[in-house]
Amino acid sequence: MWIESVSFNEDGLVPVIVQDAANARVLMMAWANREALEETVRTGRGVYFSRSRGRLWRKGEESGNVQLVKEVRLDCDGDTVLYVVEQIGGMACHTGRESCFYRRLDEEQWVVVDPVLTDPNELYKH
Amino acid sequence: MWIESVSFNEDGLVPVIVQDAANARVLMMAWANREALEETVRTGRGVYFSRSRGRLWRKGEESGNVQLVKEVRLDCDGDTVLYVVEQIGGMACHTGRESCFYRRLDEEQWVVVDPVLTDPNELYKH
Repeated sequence: MWIESVSFNEDGLVPVIVQDAANARVLMMAWANREALEETVRTGRGVYFSRSRGRLWRKGEESGNVQLVKEVRLDCDGDTVLYVVEQIGGMACHTGRESCFYRRLDEEQWVVVDPVLTDPNELYKH
Repeated sequence: MWIESVSFNEDGLVPVIVQDAANARVLMMAWANREALEETVRTGRGVYFSRSRGRLWRKGEESGNVQLVKEVRLDCDGDTVLYVVEQIGGMACHTGRESCFYRRLDEEQWVVVDPVLTDPNELYKH
């Protein structure tokens, strides 16, 4: 069974790196439990475990911006997963940006280098 | 101070995603403590905290395959870091592969889809 090769941590979670299938950008990092991984594989949509809410988080359930998972990869130690996705809406970040990694270190300062594509207040309206 | 924007977990660690600057592949995921991040920024080389060895891990210290860090990014929550690197030797994985994510889920089986570039026994000789 494929899930047996995944090493979950002491909280039953595994980090998931999410990469855009189209342009290879790293979009976000989130956590998954066994149930989230199994649902992702079964449905082909990005599902995570929200540590703050303590429940499954079906990415896009509020914003409509779901992730179509094209590829699931596992690392050498079995303790990190990679989803390669088509990000519907073109934004993975709750700030309305393409990627959550929109700050770059420049002369020891974090500089915002990616634009907001949609006002986050609009994102969560529907 | 830039380091104050980084949220370390209860063990004083932050996950670091490592991406290849040349081809955008996700190479590995590792952990860093404050000291590792500061040394990375100061020296421009990928430094991590090895949880198994309980000490700083200067990537390439055994294999010679250091990482030249071209860019450091921080995510929206401040709890995940991204290093964009030039991977000397072209292999980030201890198995002698380019990336640690060399297994892809295919019909509910993990399939090795990336070749071994160098025998790992050769990698750690010098």
